[in-house]
Amino acid sequence: MNNQLLYQHGTLGALVPGLFQGTLAIGELLKHGDTGIGTLTGLDGELIIMDGVVYQVSATGQVMVIENGAVPFANVHFAAFKSAGDIRGAAATAQQQMLAALGTHNLFAAVQVRGTFAHMTTRAVKAQQRPYPGLAATAADQAVFTREQVAGTLLGYWSPQLYAGMASPGFHLHFLADDHQFGGHVLDYTVAAGTLQTQVFSDIQLHLPTADSEFLNADLDGDLLGDITKAEH
Amino acid sequence: MNNQLLYQHGTLGALVPGLFQGTLAIGELLKHGDTGIGTLTGLDGELIIMDGVVYQVSATGQVMVIENGAVPFANVHFAAFKSAGDIRGAAATAQQQMLAALGTHNLFAAVQVRGTFAHMTTRAVKAQQRPYPGLAATAADQAVFTREQVAGTLLGYWSPQLYAGMASPGFHLHFLADDHQFGGHVLDYTVAAGTLQTQVFSDIQLHLPTADSEFLNADLDGDLLGDITKAEH
Repeated sequence: MNNQLLYQHGTLGALVPGLFQGTLAIGELLKHGDTGIGTLTGLDGELIIMDGVVYQVSATGQVMVIENGAVPFANVHFAAFKSAGDIRGAAATAQQQMLAALGTHNLFAAVQVRGTFAHMTTRAVKAQQRPYPGLAATAADQAVFTREQVAGTLLGYWSPQLYAGMASPGFHLHFLADDHQFGGHVLDYTVAAGTLQTQVFSDIQLHLPTADSEFLNADLDGDLLGDITKAEH
Repeated sequence: MNNQLLYQHGTLGALVPGLFQGTLAIGELLKHGDTGIGTLTGLDGELIIMDGVVYQVSATGQVMVIENGAVPFANVHFAAFKSAGDIRGAAATAQQQMLAALGTHNLFAAVQVRGTFAHMTTRAVKAQQRPYPGLAATAADQAVFTREQVAGTLLGYWSPQLYAGMASPGFHLHFLADDHQFGGHVLDYTVAAGTLQTQVFSDIQLHLPTADSEFLNADLDGDLLGDITKAEH
């Protein structure tokens, strides 16, 4: 167990043309980390993984603990966060503070904020059916949720711009309320009072689905980055 | 030892603005593979690693076995090649055959051709001094070598287009003559008679220089890909 290593299954570029089939079982994924984010086959909701427990926030808004299913895309690591002090403010301010705490733009890193959020807006994509649309189209087919004064955990990753084909550049954050009644992919937030933790990685291990013929045969050589930017922000 | 894993130290995008300082010792690199390619501090020549032995082809044309030094950029893996039959023909034809043998554009893979080459053109960059120029400028400061009817090993990697910020997209090949008197970064070749071996990876582990302040502070967020394409081909 190497807590300097971020493990990723799947590659963001493959989601762009709609390769949404889960290609790694949840049980296998958890061998590579106890903490992380991801999604299920068909982009069926947003996953947040804490202490080895996988929570699925579905487009109905429901949060469920799941033990089965497979991910087309997920990041996990073994948590060994370092405290980086108190944090508060709107998303842009908070994320400036996160980046300053990382000390570099050029390494992959995890961030976690525990506290109370004055405002939190999330989304969860609706489960897509075959034939899958492209990733950009799913942004129009998502549920958006908002809470005020919600206690919970903001968890996600910083990915440097250089790796935009495999990971969403910048911060990619998910949220889970402490009462497990609310969560999702984070669109906007304001931290009322929180503590920031960070974990910087020396290594990222990208694991690709070698047995998935759709992946092996997909044309991923085009300019996918524009579509990634559209869909993830 | 996982022969499904390609290990990479450094990221191609960091070479573009001239981060040529070696950040991983050769001895550390060899813990992650016995086969591969890379370069030394200052881009001092071209490395080819076979059976755990590191050969440096310098800009004088000299080939030396080295045990010390550090790499700003290198790829290694533990060789477990599969035979993919005979191969012959000019570079474009040979590389079509290599890609067909891999069976996909979408995974990282190693290729190796052993045989006789009717024609082989290589280059080796001259050792750059601080302040380092950008990568594109070094292409003008390299020695080019040609041999006819040379027996040797062509060794390198296929990287999918998606990962263009971290690895040179397409084939990145080095060469070493059987007599160890000639080699380098491959610019062009024709296989007279050879055998092709391939090794497809499920995983790539990218290891970044967390202790190198130049790397941590570099601005790598620009559009580096155009420069990569210019310098590597």
